[in-house]
Amino acid sequence: MKNKPIIHQMVAELFNLDENLLNDYASLESSVEELIARLNLKIVKKDRYDFSPQGTTAFFILSSSHLAVHTWPENNYLHLDLITCQKIPGKKELKKILSEIFKIKLGEVKVREIPYDRN
Amino acid sequence: MKNKPIIHQMVAELFNLDENLLNDYASLESSVEELIARLNLKIVKKDRYDFSPQGTTAFFILSSSHLAVHTWPENNYLHLDLITCQKIPGKKELKKILSEIFKIKLGEVKVREIPYDRN
Repeated sequence: MKNKPIIHQMVAELFNLDENLLNDYASLESSVEELIARLNLKIVKKDRYDFSPQGTTAFFILSSSHLAVHTWPENNYLHLDLITCQKIPGKKELKKILSEIFKIKLGEVKVREIPYDRN
Repeated sequence: MKNKPIIHQMVAELFNLDENLLNDYASLESSVEELIARLNLKIVKKDRYDFSPQGTTAFFILSSSHLAVHTWPENNYLHLDLITCQKIPGKKELKKILSEIFKIKLGEVKVREIPYDRN
């Protein structure tokens, strides 16, 4: 087996977000793009799908992989799934960045790193 | 905090795949769509980005979330990231389905379930 690529995967869950923000895609997209910029990642393609009556799945293909965004306005809940081959900040730093961008408390952000073997 | 949505997330890694398959997107897409059908999931939108000189990121927005696909032909490696609110087969069954669809040994498929709290 040849060497695997190096993969960093982070899953973030944001709680207690304003339902109006989660239903206002322009505002949400601006926050997500601020996150991508702060992580020094680059978007090469993006698209989204709006569910009925509410909820959006947005997808950002990055030059070094992807960020998928899922909203559940009825639960005040946002889910972010980031996979990248590029070095990104650790869990603690990412949590801080997310709480700043989305203006919520640190306790309302949960970040997990999905571990990958290096061989 | 209101109840969180129920989320199932599976990350699959496939090793030792034929580099030609990973560079032949039509064939790869057909395999991925077979997987989606076997999991009783439904595509609502799809798109992809081809990297230079090789490697593809493909994104399938599902009626119940997403499947993201990343290829690394130079490593004979395929990465699948599935998030869904719908019940899907467990790790063992998913591993079997993937080995059948991609015609590789069970030992060449690694499947992990990312756990989510239910409250």
